Amino acid sequence: MQMEHLRRIGQLRRRMTRAGLSALLVTHLPDVRYLCGFTGSNAALAVTRRAVRFFTDGRYIAQSAQEVKGAKVEIASGGAATAATQWLAAQVGVEGAAYDSAHTTVAEFERLKAALPASMRKRFFTALAAPLVETLRMTKDEDELALMREAALLGCQLFEHILTVIRPGLAEFEVAAELEHEARLLGAEGMSFETIVASGVRSSMPHGKASAARLPRKGFVTLDFGIIREGYCSDMTRTVFLGKPGSEERRVYQAVLEAQQAGVAAVGPGASCGEVDEAARSVLRKAGLSEAFTHSTGHGVGLEIHEPPRVGAGQTFRLREGMVVTIEPGVYLVGRFGVRIEDMVAVTQTAAEVLTPAPTALIEL
Amino acid sequence: MQMEHLRRIGQLRRRMTRAGLSALLVTHLPDVRYLCGFTGSNAALAVTRRAVRFFTDGRYIAQSAQEVKGAKVEIASGGAATAATQWLAAQVGVEGAAYDSAHTTVAEFERLKAALPASMRKRFFTALAAPLVETLRMTKDEDELALMREAALLGCQLFEHILTVIRPGLAEFEVAAELEHEARLLGAEGMSFETIVASGVRSSMPHGKASAARLPRKGFVTLDFGIIREGYCSDMTRTVFLGKPGSEERRVYQAVLEAQQAGVAAVGPGASCGEVDEAARSVLRKAGLSEAFTHSTGHGVGLEIHEPPRVGAGQTFRLREGMVVTIEPGVYLVGRFGVRIEDMVAVTQTAAEVLTPAPTALIEL
Repeated sequence: MQMEHLRRIGQLRRRMTRAGLSALLVTHLPDVRYLCGFTGSNAALAVTRRAVRFFTDGRYIAQSAQEVKGAKVEIASGGAATAATQWLAAQVGVEGAAYDSAHTTVAEFERLKAALPASMRKRFFTALAAPLVETLRMTKDEDELALMREAALLGCQLFEHILTVIRPGLAEFEVAAELEHEARLLGAEGMSFETIVASGVRSSMPHGKASAARLPRKGFVTLDFGIIREGYCSDMTRTVFLGKPGSEERRVYQAVLEAQQAGVAAVGPGASCGEVDEAARSVLRKAGLSEAFTHSTGHGVGLEIHEPPRVGAGQTFRLREGMVVTIEPGVYLVGRFGVRIEDMVAVTQTAAEVLTPAPTALIEL
Repeated sequence: MQMEHLRRIGQLRRRMTRAGLSALLVTHLPDVRYLCGFTGSNAALAVTRRAVRFFTDGRYIAQSAQEVKGAKVEIASGGAATAATQWLAAQVGVEGAAYDSAHTTVAEFERLKAALPASMRKRFFTALAAPLVETLRMTKDEDELALMREAALLGCQLFEHILTVIRPGLAEFEVAAELEHEARLLGAEGMSFETIVASGVRSSMPHGKASAARLPRKGFVTLDFGIIREGYCSDMTRTVFLGKPGSEERRVYQAVLEAQQAGVAAVGPGASCGEVDEAARSVLRKAGLSEAFTHSTGHGVGLEIHEPPRVGAGQTFRLREGMVVTIEPGVYLVGRFGVRIEDMVAVTQTAAEVLTPAPTALIEL
């Protein structure tokens, strides 16, 4: 992957030049990982037109030597970002640096400024107008797409496996335990977020984490889960039914399924995120269910489980080839039940590739 | 727990009064949970001397109705913190509010200010000089200590279980899979951080996440893991040996064990964090190993896996009854092996209670 990291740094430098920036402080860890490969929990990267320097702390001496590509490593005794700031300030020809105001707390920013020579404090930092590295990260290269396909398919295998496990009376957390155990054995590094197993009336909670509640004899079970593989996240949701669904339950499921399919069909290069959202939302509107669809249609996914772009109402951002987003409309009838169906979708040259090809038709168990 | 939440809000108000604050914006999620019980991923709490208002988004209608205690709930269509800010600005008698600059990004802060009436933008917010809610959270009440004891004991059970599983040839991730599966079955909501299983030469990485590496026939295996139970985190580390350790391995293990015991013995009300760190560090210094001890001795733990206080060199902060910290010295001989031993320790009225009473003497498997 060394070549990849050098190519990414090259791309970043071109964007820096275009934005008139001579130096950049990178502190958001997924950005650091993307640019140089480091997977630990404390790091900063200083990028100038000539050099890239990586900073971490003493816990990561061995790991940084093993992982970091394309940057010289320095072990800092203070904070990594502070050390990176001081290094930038000491570079000849660097009079200021851009920083990521979306991932820097006010308190941390004050600390970084205080670490500068007094004469530089006021003018050194400028907030990035738009996130440079996250913008690069939105478009996945071939290596990344390959990893994301693998991660997504691993998710589908898990869904297939869990269908053989689910039965009335199991606690939601037992379902999650089985799913997560199988994930590890299939090669997941971990889960990309807290597994959601929401059964019966709990399915009306869009984010009902697996609880001690027992699966009902009759009712929906929403499974929303994702794994991490080589840093890349998968994300998928399926809602299955235990027993025989009634007509209202069928109707709602069918509406969500059609909304989800309409959302996927709207994905393609040039489509705006708002158009994709509206494609899904309008189906639910026609079914009289749009008020029960209380969230956005989807989000970008990659090294982070939630990353740009947001696929929500009114978003004018246009999708491009290589972007990966989720399409996940849901309907939540509070106190009764809920349904959500979610796929990961990659934008191709002409349309979209569903990365999570598990069945979406209603499964009755 | 309703009474607890009201008592915590009462304590917070007394601290606000003492600090001369008429209003507070709480956005750090563990703080929100501590004060009102909400466990979701998007929320803000606005606290004045008279009222407490809770804000979240449409995904959490059902969950907030179920969980939030001691505050009126409002579902916001924009951001939760933005809605909380606007609500605060509209309260009679509230001319400004404190906010948590350590958990608010520069970009978010700009958005919050922009949501205020123009006349208020410049003066409304003041950064908290010290974290009010996190400071309250440092001292655990009886209910919290009971939960943390349970969480820590669950960790010990896991360690006992995993000793029956560990054998040469297993992949590190298989060990993690088994540990995490058992954790779920024993009632954990999840893991409090990515499980570390670092075997053989990988044990020299303080943060070696479970990889595909196989456990050696002969060598150390460091297991560092924690679970979450009702929101509270456990954290413990044990390092065991596969096969027969050599004399250097025994010597290093013994030095780390003595350092760990000295650290635990130094914990008590009135002891400074720096003194506790030095108690552990000086043992390793005498053994000529202090340069290989590349991190702090420990950290506070509770609703977050890492929270104040930091038990590090030179820290003058003094421990008080009810605080819970980890004591986890380690020695990392890069390219050879490493050893870390970690307990969770609660400060009692007179000394310390080890919450993780699993054996620390060297176990040979």
